[in-house]
Amino acid sequence: MDFQPWLVAPLSALVSVLVGLYFYRYVNKQDSGTEKMKEISNAIKEGAATFIRREYTTLAMFITVVAVLIGIFLPQPIWEAQDLWLNLQLPVAYVFGAFCSALAGYLGLSVATRANAKVANAAQGGLNKAFPIGFRGGAVMGLSVVGVGLLGISIVYSITGMVGTIPAVLAYSFGASSLSLFAKAGGGIFTKTADISADLVGKVELGIPEDDPRNPAVIADNVGDNVGDVAGMGADLFDSYIASIVAVMILGQGLGITNVYVQIPLVFAGLGILAAVIGALTVRVGKKGNPGGALNRGTYVTCMIFGILTALTTWYVGYQWQLWGAAIVGLAAGIIIGVTSDYFTSEDKAPVLKTAKASETGAALNILTGFSYGLRSVIFPLIGIAVAAAVAYKVCEPLGSGYAVYGIAMASLGMLSIVGLTVSNDAYGPIVDNSKGIAEQSGLSEEVIAITDELDSAGNTAKAITKGFAIGAAGLTVIALLAAFQEIAARAGKPVIFDIMDPMVLLGALIGLAIPAVFSAMLILGVVRNAERMITEIRRQFREIVGLKEGKPGVKPDYARCVDIATVGALRELMPASIVAIVATLLIGFVGGIKALGGFLAGSIFSSLLLALLMSNAGGLWDNAKKLIESGKHGGKGSDAHKAAVVGDTVGDPFKDTAGPSLNTMITVMSLIASMFAVLIIKYNLLELLGIH
Amino acid sequence: MDFQPWLVAPLSALVSVLVGLYFYRYVNKQDSGTEKMKEISNAIKEGAATFIRREYTTLAMFITVVAVLIGIFLPQPIWEAQDLWLNLQLPVAYVFGAFCSALAGYLGLSVATRANAKVANAAQGGLNKAFPIGFRGGAVMGLSVVGVGLLGISIVYSITGMVGTIPAVLAYSFGASSLSLFAKAGGGIFTKTADISADLVGKVELGIPEDDPRNPAVIADNVGDNVGDVAGMGADLFDSYIASIVAVMILGQGLGITNVYVQIPLVFAGLGILAAVIGALTVRVGKKGNPGGALNRGTYVTCMIFGILTALTTWYVGYQWQLWGAAIVGLAAGIIIGVTSDYFTSEDKAPVLKTAKASETGAALNILTGFSYGLRSVIFPLIGIAVAAAVAYKVCEPLGSGYAVYGIAMASLGMLSIVGLTVSNDAYGPIVDNSKGIAEQSGLSEEVIAITDELDSAGNTAKAITKGFAIGAAGLTVIALLAAFQEIAARAGKPVIFDIMDPMVLLGALIGLAIPAVFSAMLILGVVRNAERMITEIRRQFREIVGLKEGKPGVKPDYARCVDIATVGALRELMPASIVAIVATLLIGFVGGIKALGGFLAGSIFSSLLLALLMSNAGGLWDNAKKLIESGKHGGKGSDAHKAAVVGDTVGDPFKDTAGPSLNTMITVMSLIASMFAVLIIKYNLLELLGIH
Repeated sequence: MDFQPWLVAPLSALVSVLVGLYFYRYVNKQDSGTEKMKEISNAIKEGAATFIRREYTTLAMFITVVAVLIGIFLPQPIWEAQDLWLNLQLPVAYVFGAFCSALAGYLGLSVATRANAKVANAAQGGLNKAFPIGFRGGAVMGLSVVGVGLLGISIVYSITGMVGTIPAVLAYSFGASSLSLFAKAGGGIFTKTADISADLVGKVELGIPEDDPRNPAVIADNVGDNVGDVAGMGADLFDSYIASIVAVMILGQGLGITNVYVQIPLVFAGLGILAAVIGALTVRVGKKGNPGGALNRGTYVTCMIFGILTALTTWYVGYQWQLWGAAIVGLAAGIIIGVTSDYFTSEDKAPVLKTAKASETGAALNILTGFSYGLRSVIFPLIGIAVAAAVAYKVCEPLGSGYAVYGIAMASLGMLSIVGLTVSNDAYGPIVDNSKGIAEQSGLSEEVIAITDELDSAGNTAKAITKGFAIGAAGLTVIALLAAFQEIAARAGKPVIFDIMDPMVLLGALIGLAIPAVFSAMLILGVVRNAERMITEIRRQFREIVGLKEGKPGVKPDYARCVDIATVGALRELMPASIVAIVATLLIGFVGGIKALGGFLAGSIFSSLLLALLMSNAGGLWDNAKKLIESGKHGGKGSDAHKAAVVGDTVGDPFKDTAGPSLNTMITVMSLIASMFAVLIIKYNLLELLGIH
Repeated sequence: MDFQPWLVAPLSALVSVLVGLYFYRYVNKQDSGTEKMKEISNAIKEGAATFIRREYTTLAMFITVVAVLIGIFLPQPIWEAQDLWLNLQLPVAYVFGAFCSALAGYLGLSVATRANAKVANAAQGGLNKAFPIGFRGGAVMGLSVVGVGLLGISIVYSITGMVGTIPAVLAYSFGASSLSLFAKAGGGIFTKTADISADLVGKVELGIPEDDPRNPAVIADNVGDNVGDVAGMGADLFDSYIASIVAVMILGQGLGITNVYVQIPLVFAGLGILAAVIGALTVRVGKKGNPGGALNRGTYVTCMIFGILTALTTWYVGYQWQLWGAAIVGLAAGIIIGVTSDYFTSEDKAPVLKTAKASETGAALNILTGFSYGLRSVIFPLIGIAVAAAVAYKVCEPLGSGYAVYGIAMASLGMLSIVGLTVSNDAYGPIVDNSKGIAEQSGLSEEVIAITDELDSAGNTAKAITKGFAIGAAGLTVIALLAAFQEIAARAGKPVIFDIMDPMVLLGALIGLAIPAVFSAMLILGVVRNAERMITEIRRQFREIVGLKEGKPGVKPDYARCVDIATVGALRELMPASIVAIVATLLIGFVGGIKALGGFLAGSIFSSLLLALLMSNAGGLWDNAKKLIESGKHGGKGSDAHKAAVVGDTVGDPFKDTAGPSLNTMITVMSLIASMFAVLIIKYNLLELLGIH
């Protein structure tokens, strides 16, 4: 048997996992420092582990229930099924997808919560000693996300081979996304509950610094960085990544009887992983080096390697060059979106400068200015996504019918190809953020704290670009998924056009517009409710524990109580919003039919892109306006301007770290559900049964 | 010649104008009270007159330039024109539309700024003496908006009779909307500049009450209520009203060779005016009566009369009943949207109660809670608009091809039919708000102030429902305009389907999404910039004018300086945002072609509905949360919760009174431009010239 090109996917995935394990061992070998540092690190690790364990236990029940429902109803109700194997493969693939997503999150989290103290300890030997531990700690997450994800989908594909009206890879993707949605929401609520409460009581009411060990919420805050940013962001990109591959595969199935077009996304994804592994191995920094530059350089190197590898493969295997072009268009758009997003959140550009200045006149003008720049910031990414989709479409259109939307899907894949490195850079952030916290809590020298500070701000620089990728990729992916949904409907004998002036499409679109807004509101209100509980607890501790406020030696707050409040609250609040989104999708489908559902998805995508961009960028710029003031501008720490900026930052917290990123996952899940249930919806929907089309 | 049914339009319009003049005289006859009261009232009147004069002068130049451009290029470039009359009628109709809009605004404003002191004076004789002056003062605005508007369109129609590829009524509507857009933006910036500045320095920094005569911005604030809420809101509904009539006329033109379907909207609008006149004459309140109930009763009475009159006419003239049904569906949807919006801004419902409660924990949680409920609030109105459009479509579909979208347009007309009363209720608000201010500044008794307070809160109750109408109507109107745009394109030989998966439509839609966000941001930043200037001035006066802060008798602030700052600032800021929206529309059209433009409109409509609903409702609920605290809850005035609630209210101010309502007008203007230029765009657009379709 010849070597099949698509096998590059599982092989590269294995390489990625192995390099991830190598980094894991490398990080683990490092010294964690003093007893005090180990103690703090352990408290964070245990808090995170407890949360993840309880979260996964809750989700396991949900996943089981959904798996049973899938087995009963899909691809056909079990009492009508001719081939029971099809009804079995879907729930198994679904559970497997959820499992892979959970595994990747768990691996990343467990190394991140170990690496923090090691980075702080190594910082005593200089920046160039500490940086690789932070980066490689993050890379464990990055490489395991893509490695586990791609390995999983390769296994599902090799076993099921796209058989049936609903390919098993779709169920795999749905499983991954379901878990991601909850992980993102749960982690996001946890982290912002702790962050807001710690800030409002600590910084605003008592005027004690961030990460002060007297603050009862400080450990919960550090745990939150890990479960929110590491596990959450990993889950977010994991699900877009898998979904974009699956969208290309489904559209590729329609292009011919051979499997070439089904396998191209696997080949490109495999090459993307190789590029990311090589990129990750090249990231390093000299003794006087600039860690932010090193991270971005890694991104650009990876992009270049990806471009070269895919070009060589396209030439060698003989794929159409247009498809390569579409992937590169997507990749380029990702970079452009990232760079323009950076403008709106950089400390030396007008949006942050003006927001910081407005803080002098109080919180209201800080909020209005930041919110306005957030509104403005949506235009460049939207143009980026729009142009990327249109160009990819037009480039591939001459290849024939069906190739054009395939091109859009290839562009989304191209944008996500380097996700291994994107997640690495992103997970680096919370690790070094934590290490800064540990350095402060365990009383390391000012010099060391300054080094951890430099590492931390490098993380923020890199984050701007990777966040651009995340949102842009989600946008293109859901457009591709919408095309896949249309393709599945057409295969089921119901070709539909999503014409805005069709009343059912319009009805769906207008209602769809509202869902991301309601979803965001539920998550933010969850954070608010939780924060109110935790603030009460923090105030109680400061009131009741004698000597805590004064910092009497030996007096310690009850950290565990705050971690527990965040955990319980997050577990309670993570479900309802997601379930509303899922149920609304099914309801629209089974009541309004396939056209209403298509409009509904389009409306949700539009509104979700708008809100996600607004919230992410406004949140980021409020955060940096506050940091700018803390660096001494406009009166510095403790000034009225600072208090106003803290209000802005607090408002931005759940915007950028809870609601904003969860929206990406929400629309992916909704699009996947629509595709999963399309065939059933075509058969059974209320309005058509009533004779209204 | 038989009596033509459509003549009911100009006749009713005349009746409306006459009743408006009667109310004008009635209000003018009332006594304005003491010298002090007259002095304040005069200051407000002069400030408003100066602003309006300068605003109209600026706009006259803009209108002239656009009129010349229209004359040169539309309906055909003048060097290709076969009938020069067509190139002449459009700019004339355009200027006439702008003039009518300005006239209606001017009439309303000039009575409103007189009525305020008269209401305050009459309040000394009891609620039932004061109420009719306030209501009839508002009704002058309401009746002149519909009267002047409908009279104008009747004149244009009777002279031009829908001849040419671009009917002159479209240009009339475009003129009305252009002026409305600027009037809304300018008035909105003026009013919120003054309001925010007065609050931030007065309430927050110095702790002096609202409407305190020591505050240098207090007159500017009162002027703002008039130029923002009276003239601005009138302009907003004026333009939706005319646009919805024109949309039905254009769609009706496609339905047959007779003029029946072109004239139905005129007939229904005429009957709507009659209903509003009768409704307005029935509004009255007893000595112990409830003014809020009286206003809402007027609305319901008008709705019923409209339903009966149109049913009788439909039966008598022999129109299809389905068309009547569509109009009634629209009207019902308007009421439902209003009532549900009311839930989110009522002082005794969960959203306001929880936002007020969250203020105890500071400004950040107040903002997050209010914003979240604002996000949630979008769902009911969107469902209302969606269902109204779908039902109207389905009801009229059996009549034949083209009738279905005509039905949607009839629904928008139905929703707007009672706009005469809606605007009356709305303009009542700022009049009694001002009268409360005058009562406080001129030292009337507590009892009298309590009466003006009751009148004021009745205005807020009525406002919730009328605002629901305004947004819902704008939503349906622009959908109708989108259909009209499609109809015009089809007539020009280019039938298009706005298929979301078409790359040009998608491109347009994604970019269109961003425009309302950018537009809102520009307006809000305009308010912020202006407020910063005015705050500096207010602080200067308190610092430099000896005895002002202490309230030494005889010491007066320089009110005129603040009015001037608001005027100059508003004039500077009102243009750019609107021009961006206009230029973006033309750019997309002339670059991307008709499909991209259709997608662009759809995207803008979606995003604009979302943002307008969010901003209006969040703004309203922050306002009422603050009022709830001021009434003594959660610590009352001066407490920390109150300070937090003032931040929320200040953020909400430009949301609900500047950006939110301007968005309605913005999408109307964009839709009208698209229709005006559709034929030219089909001929000349860059991508098609380059061979890309």
